[in-house]
Amino acid sequence: MSSLAIQDDLEVEVPALTQEELRKMDAYWRACNYLCAGMLYLKENPLLREPLKAEQIKNRLLGHWGSDPGQTFTWVHLNRLIKKYDLNMIYISGPGHGAPATLSNCYLEGVYSEVYPDKSQDEAGMLKFFKQFSFPGGIGSHCTPETPGSIHEGGELGYSLVHGFGAAFDNPDLIVNVVVGDGEAETGPLATSWHSNKFLNPIRDGAVLPILHLNGYKIANPTILARIPANELEMLFKGLGWKPYVVEGDDPAVMHQKMAETMERCVLEIRAIQEHARTTGDTTRPYWPMIILRTPKGWTGPKEVDGHKVEGSWRAHQIPILDPKTNPENLAKLEAWMRSYKPEELFDESGALIEELREMAPKGQRRLTGNPHANGGLLRKPLVLPDFRDYAVEVKKPGQIEVSPTATLALFLRDVMKANMTNFRVFGPDETASNKLDGIYAASPKTWMEELIAQDADGGFLARDGRVMEMLSETTLEGWFEGYVLTGRHGLFSTYEAFVHIIDSMFNQHAKWLEKSKAELRWRAPISSINILISSVVWRQDHNGFTHEDPGFLDVVTNKSPEVTRIYLPPDANCGLSVGAHCLASTEYINVIVSDKQPHLSYLTMDEAVEHCTKGIGIWDWASNDDGEEPDVVIASAGDVATAEALAAVSLLREHCPEVKIRFVNVVDLFKLMPDTKHPHGLSDRDFDSLFTCDKPVIFNFHAYPWLIHKLTYRRTNHANLHVHGYKERGNINTPLELAIVNSVDRFHLAIDVIDRVKKLQATAAHTKEWLKGQIVEAVNYAHENGIDKKEFREWKWPA
Amino acid sequence: MSSLAIQDDLEVEVPALTQEELRKMDAYWRACNYLCAGMLYLKENPLLREPLKAEQIKNRLLGHWGSDPGQTFTWVHLNRLIKKYDLNMIYISGPGHGAPATLSNCYLEGVYSEVYPDKSQDEAGMLKFFKQFSFPGGIGSHCTPETPGSIHEGGELGYSLVHGFGAAFDNPDLIVNVVVGDGEAETGPLATSWHSNKFLNPIRDGAVLPILHLNGYKIANPTILARIPANELEMLFKGLGWKPYVVEGDDPAVMHQKMAETMERCVLEIRAIQEHARTTGDTTRPYWPMIILRTPKGWTGPKEVDGHKVEGSWRAHQIPILDPKTNPENLAKLEAWMRSYKPEELFDESGALIEELREMAPKGQRRLTGNPHANGGLLRKPLVLPDFRDYAVEVKKPGQIEVSPTATLALFLRDVMKANMTNFRVFGPDETASNKLDGIYAASPKTWMEELIAQDADGGFLARDGRVMEMLSETTLEGWFEGYVLTGRHGLFSTYEAFVHIIDSMFNQHAKWLEKSKAELRWRAPISSINILISSVVWRQDHNGFTHEDPGFLDVVTNKSPEVTRIYLPPDANCGLSVGAHCLASTEYINVIVSDKQPHLSYLTMDEAVEHCTKGIGIWDWASNDDGEEPDVVIASAGDVATAEALAAVSLLREHCPEVKIRFVNVVDLFKLMPDTKHPHGLSDRDFDSLFTCDKPVIFNFHAYPWLIHKLTYRRTNHANLHVHGYKERGNINTPLELAIVNSVDRFHLAIDVIDRVKKLQATAAHTKEWLKGQIVEAVNYAHENGIDKKEFREWKWPA
Repeated sequence: MSSLAIQDDLEVEVPALTQEELRKMDAYWRACNYLCAGMLYLKENPLLREPLKAEQIKNRLLGHWGSDPGQTFTWVHLNRLIKKYDLNMIYISGPGHGAPATLSNCYLEGVYSEVYPDKSQDEAGMLKFFKQFSFPGGIGSHCTPETPGSIHEGGELGYSLVHGFGAAFDNPDLIVNVVVGDGEAETGPLATSWHSNKFLNPIRDGAVLPILHLNGYKIANPTILARIPANELEMLFKGLGWKPYVVEGDDPAVMHQKMAETMERCVLEIRAIQEHARTTGDTTRPYWPMIILRTPKGWTGPKEVDGHKVEGSWRAHQIPILDPKTNPENLAKLEAWMRSYKPEELFDESGALIEELREMAPKGQRRLTGNPHANGGLLRKPLVLPDFRDYAVEVKKPGQIEVSPTATLALFLRDVMKANMTNFRVFGPDETASNKLDGIYAASPKTWMEELIAQDADGGFLARDGRVMEMLSETTLEGWFEGYVLTGRHGLFSTYEAFVHIIDSMFNQHAKWLEKSKAELRWRAPISSINILISSVVWRQDHNGFTHEDPGFLDVVTNKSPEVTRIYLPPDANCGLSVGAHCLASTEYINVIVSDKQPHLSYLTMDEAVEHCTKGIGIWDWASNDDGEEPDVVIASAGDVATAEALAAVSLLREHCPEVKIRFVNVVDLFKLMPDTKHPHGLSDRDFDSLFTCDKPVIFNFHAYPWLIHKLTYRRTNHANLHVHGYKERGNINTPLELAIVNSVDRFHLAIDVIDRVKKLQATAAHTKEWLKGQIVEAVNYAHENGIDKKEFREWKWPA
Repeated sequence: MSSLAIQDDLEVEVPALTQEELRKMDAYWRACNYLCAGMLYLKENPLLREPLKAEQIKNRLLGHWGSDPGQTFTWVHLNRLIKKYDLNMIYISGPGHGAPATLSNCYLEGVYSEVYPDKSQDEAGMLKFFKQFSFPGGIGSHCTPETPGSIHEGGELGYSLVHGFGAAFDNPDLIVNVVVGDGEAETGPLATSWHSNKFLNPIRDGAVLPILHLNGYKIANPTILARIPANELEMLFKGLGWKPYVVEGDDPAVMHQKMAETMERCVLEIRAIQEHARTTGDTTRPYWPMIILRTPKGWTGPKEVDGHKVEGSWRAHQIPILDPKTNPENLAKLEAWMRSYKPEELFDESGALIEELREMAPKGQRRLTGNPHANGGLLRKPLVLPDFRDYAVEVKKPGQIEVSPTATLALFLRDVMKANMTNFRVFGPDETASNKLDGIYAASPKTWMEELIAQDADGGFLARDGRVMEMLSETTLEGWFEGYVLTGRHGLFSTYEAFVHIIDSMFNQHAKWLEKSKAELRWRAPISSINILISSVVWRQDHNGFTHEDPGFLDVVTNKSPEVTRIYLPPDANCGLSVGAHCLASTEYINVIVSDKQPHLSYLTMDEAVEHCTKGIGIWDWASNDDGEEPDVVIASAGDVATAEALAAVSLLREHCPEVKIRFVNVVDLFKLMPDTKHPHGLSDRDFDSLFTCDKPVIFNFHAYPWLIHKLTYRRTNHANLHVHGYKERGNINTPLELAIVNSVDRFHLAIDVIDRVKKLQATAAHTKEWLKGQIVEAVNYAHENGIDKKEFREWKWPA
């Protein structure tokens, strides 16, 4: 019997709420809604124990009411079922700026006062709780990191569902309740994330219960999903593989019964699906239940203000009554609205929630805002890491053998996977194999819950319990990964360099989340880093060309807080191993590793690599001939392709211009270039100067856009002599060397630049310079004729 | 009768193909497929007139076969109907790297030879055509700008359908055929773009005919949509509001009949829908037809290679036979495969397509690759622009009145809309009103094809024929806009500053498209610029806080070609008008305008604004007291909020430190800061030095991240004395002044910085400095206590 049959046959007793239950649940809901309204408006008189006066209203009204009552309604019903079935559940709030719903419940559950003791469970605490909301120096009107119980920043819309799935993976007992706003449902990331159900294994993973909250309006427009015909809506979600239940209405008493019945049915279906799968081993993808909750925007709020409909309209999105401070009629309307929740029945003399309502909430870690999964660092177990040195490439002499850095890393990742089969995943947008990380499949193939066919056995690497996550959607993968890490687990995301820009905004949001958590919220336990491996780099787009050439993600990264951002450009495979292992063990960073998938020369033994990567920047003596003295020129590099070309330039110069004293510096840890006053990894000026000299020309060959190096170094002593070569937005279909040439990061242009900038060479190296120019012409002509680079260029090695 | 009824009742004669038609269509298809294979492999012997030899194979095999045959199949059927019904149609190729399908047809239709005469319709031309493909110095394997007939770059996946809708808007006679790959269908942007049907008006707009090409595999994985059960797939598209037809199989003869019948039915349905709407005025949203085409990946290619299934597998994605150059058995397999298309029956002695097949293609502008909509600049009519001066804010003295720059611009845009009611649209993600552009609605409300309800009349501004496009999806809007502009029309996209990062990657791709088109492809007629108005800026996130603070899009923009990128930061409303009008009239740029929605001081009369914006940078004499002499300090600004604070600092200094000689410089056109050798708008060093001096301190107050200014100016003479204030990733819920303070862009920190850096003030201004520090403390305390800035700060004006 398949999971689907189980669902269809499910016959359960779902009793109606008793009048007593209904009364108490409605009272709890009123308490939530009262707090939501209080947050928006009050700076005094929090319990309305005296008539409301204009001066008790905040000077500036900022915050969002629209989705709050629908979300608090949901919450009250979740609480009932958590208690009834002892559910392990977290709540993700998707609708924009719906924080009051979470905050009010967090306060009523007592968690807020535990985390922020001055927001105590009494009138004084409630006042502080109200006043800080959406107030300078206070907290935001969406679920920022400051919100206990939340792992989901509600600032940018579209990622609630992917965060929910990320949380559910490998958490078989967890149910993640995700309220999806009908506004955010229009975004691309959200629209495709409904397909996440195709990657959830009912045996191994937990469940996600999406509640699509159709409140009908965005900031200023109706929403699409709220206005399409009901039959389309139903077909849409069935087509997406869900089993939709509709709860619709605006009469609280009726709605409580409907919601109680529907939500209980969903919980029982989830349990039946899981039990069936876990007892029979049948992993057929079930139709997981979901709820479509259709309630008026700003439900229970003012129906009409100044002649305009408010409840059930976009006018309820933010502040439903705009001018109570100056308009006595609207002040009265506000007071009447707030009093309609009967605060005097809900809170006791001290201002605390009355006992019989406090009983309604779950206890301890079962509270939605007290569940440790929502502070995932608490549950985080360090990754079991094999010794990365065991995967070293044997390097007898620098620059003699070519290996793919990512393929080397893959073998280490394979064993990381083997050692952490319940809390480590690898994510990639259909590019894991393309990025030569397919070695990982030996430990675990890719998750695939759809039909498996015979030919999949031939190199398909698909399995119901695979742990490599692949879908052609960068936003889905990054979102899953974030949700996974935010709930205390570990992972790595590999993606093509050009298209990592698709997640620029997600990166920004996660960096902001980390920065606040790390700097200000020590109650949030450290979570694992987000590790982004950028491969298929700009320099090797041999057949993809110009559209696939964009190394600008690093520019985006450098705009975020130095406390949470790290960029590594390992020059070879052993450095890649050292950096990779370091990043996987770290917490509270976004680590960006740029490492190409093509075979590249290896330079450093494992020990040398560890030392080099630990320092992050250093002189390569074997490539230098300055013998510890002041050189004529510093040649520096960052990035695998950039380093190879820079070394080839050094080799040309040492052959053709032996009189020039060259120091070769390689940068692995990009932030070493920043001043130590600006970034914790930054070098002091003294150390920087000792590497780059105070007055000698520095020719810097960089992986990405050249001006990024200037952005990092513009205050350095020798900055005026720093000449950076990098990607200059030139390219098409090119051989590797040709692409380097058109952007002047190739060996010949670098050598010419040295000749041009080192005075003593200008007299002696004129002939060499002409020869180098000739090499450039020859290289391009050869490429255009033969479609490949000349063998001697393609197979260049460092002189043995 | 509704459109839906029309569709259901549609009874049309759709005759089967005659054997003769079928024979010829199949032959044409074979010719396409032969060319696709030829591109991948051959550098000699293009017509296989001699036995294929290893040395005739390209040295490196790069390119993509997988989706080609399905796409060429589609194309042949479109050709039949274009001829039969004289259709005005373009073709958008969504699947990744499917260019051979478009290229082969472009060549067979003769367009390729018209655009690139050396790729002539003979054996020699065909050889060149083959050789250049995915070859250094040649063209890419996706539809780059070099591909005639394409408006859609196939490099990054996910935007085919939105580009198609953009093309169809306001083109009532056009049918845009969009082949959507099942890989790209997994991306967020594509997943939500199916909802574009809710914004297509059957009277005013053309039609989009999506063909979802389920070939089953991505690079290395099955696709989701190809493996979900057939009933889910059907419900999904019905739920998305489409009428799906399935064409499935692998026997060409059977498939030709099915496709002919289905496609003709789709065309007739489209015509019936349009005729119904256009004759009755009934704009009820119809269920537009779409086709789900399920064919094997690499259809008609080798079935098996080296014991692995290739046709119908991910192994057909790229090069189906990898080693024909070194493996004689596989060379024979390649030859047999290519000969299976019978090139000797398809091409005549000269190498041209035989006459009876040439007849199969439409003629002239009806050719899919010859349709002028696919080279939209040809059809572009300049925008009718009212005189922007008519919308000027009256400025009697600088800095006395506050107006919202975007609200001012909105009135101009309203009249631009009125004057261009068939070729101008405004796009915004539910933020047009939030960004205070709602003045535009007086000319035209928002497009809304879903149900309209009574309350929409109260401020809803929704209409079937509205011309303002709003959906909560930045990618959809940007994609529509690109499609609209690429087909020769005009528009403006406004969006919140922080979340414009969502389209970073789309920006990158369009900039690359423009750069190639402009620099290398003069056969592409200039198209209108993409105008992006960034509002709700970083400095005014009073209730959104940290998550909404990210001015880093400008960093992304500065990485792209100076030939196609422009950034403007108008300091006030009149400058906003001048810049806005300039951008709307321009072609072939991406213009980024940063302009806040909140009321800000106005400084310049319209004439002054025009002069200032035309120069792009200039000294404001009225704010300076250096009287044309060398100043003690230059205070510079770029951005509305940054300018207001910088002026307030000047005012403080002139009051408290009258001895300091200040020059005030404002920057509108950010690229003025770059050297003229690096950007066409850049200032010469001489001009830069004359503004910023060679040795005086420059305190630069910048809208965005401060290091961007260093990135642009690091080579300038006086760079060492340039001190930039900007957003430093600090913020939470803050009053405007408080946010400025925590990032040191406020008047007080600026004045202190001047005191610290101007020697002569260090002795005299110690007291002032202490007072300024006190002001900072007072400002923050006041904000935290009252929730607003102190009146005197909030309402600061330039001394009258």
